[in-house]
Amino acid sequence: MSLYTVTFNPLGKKVKVNRGTTLIEAASEADISINNVCGGDGICGHCRMIVTEGKVSGRISEKLTPDEIKKGYVLACMSSVESDVVVLIPEETLVREKDEADEDIIRHKRAEDVFCKDKWQPFPLVQKIYLELEQPSLSNNTADHQRVCSAIKNRLSVTFSQAGLKIIKSLPDILRDNNYHITATVGIRGNIAEFMYVEGGNTADKNYLVVVDMGTTTVVAHLIDANKYKTIDAKACFNSQGIYGREVTGRLISAEKEGSSKLHKLLIDDINELIGKLVRDNKVHFKDITAVICAGNTVMGHFLLDLPIENIRRTPYIATSIEPPPLRAAEVGIKINPRGLLYSLPGISGWVGSDLTAGILATGLNEKSETSLLVDIGTNGEVIVGNSEWIMACSASAGPALEGASVECGVRAEKGAIERVYVKAGEICYDTIGKAPPIGVCGSGIIDLLSVLLNEGIINRSGKIVKKISKRVTTKEGIKRYYLVLESENRNKKPVYITEADIENIITAKAAIYAAMKILLQRLDLQFTDIKHFYIAGAFGNYLDMENAITIGLIPNIPRDRVIFAGNTSIKGATIAALSQDALNKIIEIERNTTYYDLMGADDYIHEFTKAMFLPHTDIEVFQTVEV
Amino acid sequence: MSLYTVTFNPLGKKVKVNRGTTLIEAASEADISINNVCGGDGICGHCRMIVTEGKVSGRISEKLTPDEIKKGYVLACMSSVESDVVVLIPEETLVREKDEADEDIIRHKRAEDVFCKDKWQPFPLVQKIYLELEQPSLSNNTADHQRVCSAIKNRLSVTFSQAGLKIIKSLPDILRDNNYHITATVGIRGNIAEFMYVEGGNTADKNYLVVVDMGTTTVVAHLIDANKYKTIDAKACFNSQGIYGREVTGRLISAEKEGSSKLHKLLIDDINELIGKLVRDNKVHFKDITAVICAGNTVMGHFLLDLPIENIRRTPYIATSIEPPPLRAAEVGIKINPRGLLYSLPGISGWVGSDLTAGILATGLNEKSETSLLVDIGTNGEVIVGNSEWIMACSASAGPALEGASVECGVRAEKGAIERVYVKAGEICYDTIGKAPPIGVCGSGIIDLLSVLLNEGIINRSGKIVKKISKRVTTKEGIKRYYLVLESENRNKKPVYITEADIENIITAKAAIYAAMKILLQRLDLQFTDIKHFYIAGAFGNYLDMENAITIGLIPNIPRDRVIFAGNTSIKGATIAALSQDALNKIIEIERNTTYYDLMGADDYIHEFTKAMFLPHTDIEVFQTVEV
Repeated sequence: MSLYTVTFNPLGKKVKVNRGTTLIEAASEADISINNVCGGDGICGHCRMIVTEGKVSGRISEKLTPDEIKKGYVLACMSSVESDVVVLIPEETLVREKDEADEDIIRHKRAEDVFCKDKWQPFPLVQKIYLELEQPSLSNNTADHQRVCSAIKNRLSVTFSQAGLKIIKSLPDILRDNNYHITATVGIRGNIAEFMYVEGGNTADKNYLVVVDMGTTTVVAHLIDANKYKTIDAKACFNSQGIYGREVTGRLISAEKEGSSKLHKLLIDDINELIGKLVRDNKVHFKDITAVICAGNTVMGHFLLDLPIENIRRTPYIATSIEPPPLRAAEVGIKINPRGLLYSLPGISGWVGSDLTAGILATGLNEKSETSLLVDIGTNGEVIVGNSEWIMACSASAGPALEGASVECGVRAEKGAIERVYVKAGEICYDTIGKAPPIGVCGSGIIDLLSVLLNEGIINRSGKIVKKISKRVTTKEGIKRYYLVLESENRNKKPVYITEADIENIITAKAAIYAAMKILLQRLDLQFTDIKHFYIAGAFGNYLDMENAITIGLIPNIPRDRVIFAGNTSIKGATIAALSQDALNKIIEIERNTTYYDLMGADDYIHEFTKAMFLPHTDIEVFQTVEV
Repeated sequence: MSLYTVTFNPLGKKVKVNRGTTLIEAASEADISINNVCGGDGICGHCRMIVTEGKVSGRISEKLTPDEIKKGYVLACMSSVESDVVVLIPEETLVREKDEADEDIIRHKRAEDVFCKDKWQPFPLVQKIYLELEQPSLSNNTADHQRVCSAIKNRLSVTFSQAGLKIIKSLPDILRDNNYHITATVGIRGNIAEFMYVEGGNTADKNYLVVVDMGTTTVVAHLIDANKYKTIDAKACFNSQGIYGREVTGRLISAEKEGSSKLHKLLIDDINELIGKLVRDNKVHFKDITAVICAGNTVMGHFLLDLPIENIRRTPYIATSIEPPPLRAAEVGIKINPRGLLYSLPGISGWVGSDLTAGILATGLNEKSETSLLVDIGTNGEVIVGNSEWIMACSASAGPALEGASVECGVRAEKGAIERVYVKAGEICYDTIGKAPPIGVCGSGIIDLLSVLLNEGIINRSGKIVKKISKRVTTKEGIKRYYLVLESENRNKKPVYITEADIENIITAKAAIYAAMKILLQRLDLQFTDIKHFYIAGAFGNYLDMENAITIGLIPNIPRDRVIFAGNTSIKGATIAALSQDALNKIIEIERNTTYYDLMGADDYIHEFTKAMFLPHTDIEVFQTVEV
């Protein structure tokens, strides 16, 4: 097969690809992150590039104007390489390089803040134990292996039933060469411990764990010092699987078409890249990272291990495994100590993953006698309701509108994204991330915008634009749009607007999440007012304006002091579990005790969903404190 | 390096070897078992061969007469190949082919005889479970992996924490292709269970275990139907490591000199050969053998896994591991189901192995409130004393005399071996195995012979030949010898005699074992009369004449009804453990609760040993019912 060179400017990156490779695939090969929402279906029109030399083939997208086509614009996902090609990537198409991922994205809680030693028995999942063993004698003739294991048992109170043959074989020499002063590394595997490896002398002070939140959009990795129960550093990057779609559904379809190993590899590469950065920046050795603890939605959990995914998106939505056993990290290609372990935290079902079980642990929902609700707002809206007696979970497909996708001017929460919209002195104003010229609106800005438009009477409760404002409201192809930023107002020379179609997508998303909460509560014979603690999780939750979220009916109209923005509860819970076997066992208990309720089996879901397709809701009285 | 062909006649077997290879090594390569006791040190003189063509180099052995040297006789262990060579192996040098190993050697108890379901909870270490799973639905959306594991748990009450990634990956297709009717294979690994593999449909009726007794002399393998708790067949072969010495010490030295992997490989090859025969003869598939359960002395246990052996034979005699975890059999090269497990039963110390822990289980010594003694008579004499409260163990190096080695006319218990010697109508008579012309004396015959010679006044209590009998008693090189069979009386044209040097070796062996028993009892403040059950184990024990053994002082003079010939307690105990996790746990408990007492630390051992260097003993009153 012919190999062609694709050159990406202005980065100057080159990559050799087979004939027929799409430009977006070539960009991924060249490690360039491309703005892309639809997953390569030519729908979102975000992945535009300009071909300056060479030939590409593919259908012409209606997302491009005749003028743009004349200038050489193509959609990268629709264009296959047919010769050596030179391409210019416009700024708006380029997602900033991974290593520039905004610190905001991380917005993490550190281990020393979330791990409470009074609450959780400190017992990291992998521990290094320095041992000064008694030397053997005729009256103490225990075998080497049992001598070490019994000393470990005395220190840790663990039950052994595993040790690699290679490790056992290495013991006689290591013990005798080091005067019986050794460091044993011990990992918890379910009910038992594995004697993972042994080093001469005292290396116990160097034991690091990496905790990973495998978000659909962002992968976050924390480096934790297992001896100090302390987060040393955190790194984040965009999930490189984005090339296959912003939603997990798109990625599942791609995986079925092209094999899941591609998506598996992208995720592993991201994790390895983050670990590599943590290692470099903190002068830690790979060999001293003894475990990786991963949380995320069940689909990410499957891509992590490259488990079959075919049945997750088809009724009755069956995962291959929601509680995979600890594995050697090397088995899936994660580069830490070659004997280091990979823990996948257990999830609840194909559509409620370990990010939620970790979230339940982090919020303590499962320990309160009062009933709480935890909602993780993202492409999928997962809802947990429960207390110390019982827990129920459900999941609704919301679409990515609330994350800024499936909205024409929607962008990720990156530099230049409008993250706040508000009225000041009668004017609709906005703030952007990094105070940069606006490039689009991200999730929190979208909710603010909708709320402001509703409060200002620009849209009605159905989301239709009803107020005529010269210049700011226009109609294109029969669909009305409201311009928050006119081209002339933007140094980027780019307008930022919202269309009635966008608004419908947003209302659909909030309605899906609201209906999910409503149905789950109905099944439990509860009202929103029975919920004493209302946790909002997800990176999204960090930015959300509570009143605006209530105004559009995303969050119910409940006493404000019950609402807690819990942040990234996935990484919080995973950090706690990494440092305490008790906590890990608690997560497993949470997983087993949580009843998953599939909304596909709820005949009245569609009814509740329809009722929520208004702003804030059809039954206005349930939102009566909200001014509309 | 030059390659030469060695042809072994009368077998006609050929093998290509490097220049400098010894003939005994060449014979091993050619899969020929050679009579050899000293382990290749040129001492025993048993490995004689006649070089009929070609050239060998090596020193001339004093074990050969000038006449023999003239005829081309060499010692195979001392002769290196220097050209293509043709060799004739005399009948007495040839150990019968492995597959002719005498059925007597096996003399096993069958599983259905030793495994008592009332006593041990039937729970084979690996089980196949046929499951007809409920099909998933919206109201039953458990993930595939958890669906299978929870069904297994319902059936077996086990805790999982292990399953290979490959197995988990295979589940979705196997479940759906087989209408959720599958067979899961589950193995016990310490406190947890491993979901080992899965097959479509019902294959649960095909689950076989192989139990192996890794004897220093003989390797025995039993094929057990795990569903029927029944022994299907048994095979045995001589331990091919014999080429490196009849005693484990010789093999340890060879392993240090030449690397232990050679000895490891010989043992694995033997086990594979036995399994191959069991498979062929019983029309079983390798894939349906799900586990191998091994017992044996600790050195054999180390060779099985190729663990370092350097410290076992040096003070303070430290093993690398006496309780290795279950491994995948394939990891050490044992050919059964590729996912099948290898269980090494736990031993007590470097010199008291799992053949003894299995023996304790098999005799039930650990469950009786009365105190019992178990002695395993072999090259090593292991002594166990204990009851349901406590157990102590020690081991004495006896040398191979009681097995027919280090005795000039000593042979293994094979066809033509004199196994009984007795007085009939005033004449000393003998019986041979298979009623064949005598080729030498094996262990039981040696004890009988010594007893008869003592009773007839031919030897005195020091083992010196004191009676002159024309023709039968002669002196050669200053050492007296007694001819049991004159050359003229034997169709083999071979005399069978015993020398004063042989007798000293035998007395040394019995004294070592007796002193070991004595010292261990002294430490416990016990007398032989306090022992209510006196178990004699080892294949040896099957043939032993109790009165003669007492006459020479190998066994103390105790009431005869307390003596039990327990047979191969190693294979019995291992069979019970293979079929019951309870029993395996009991063996581990036995191992942990048994105190090993090292006789090297006993200053009075040499005193007791010296006192036992008489027939039956210095203190004749302790053997007062014995007529001398």
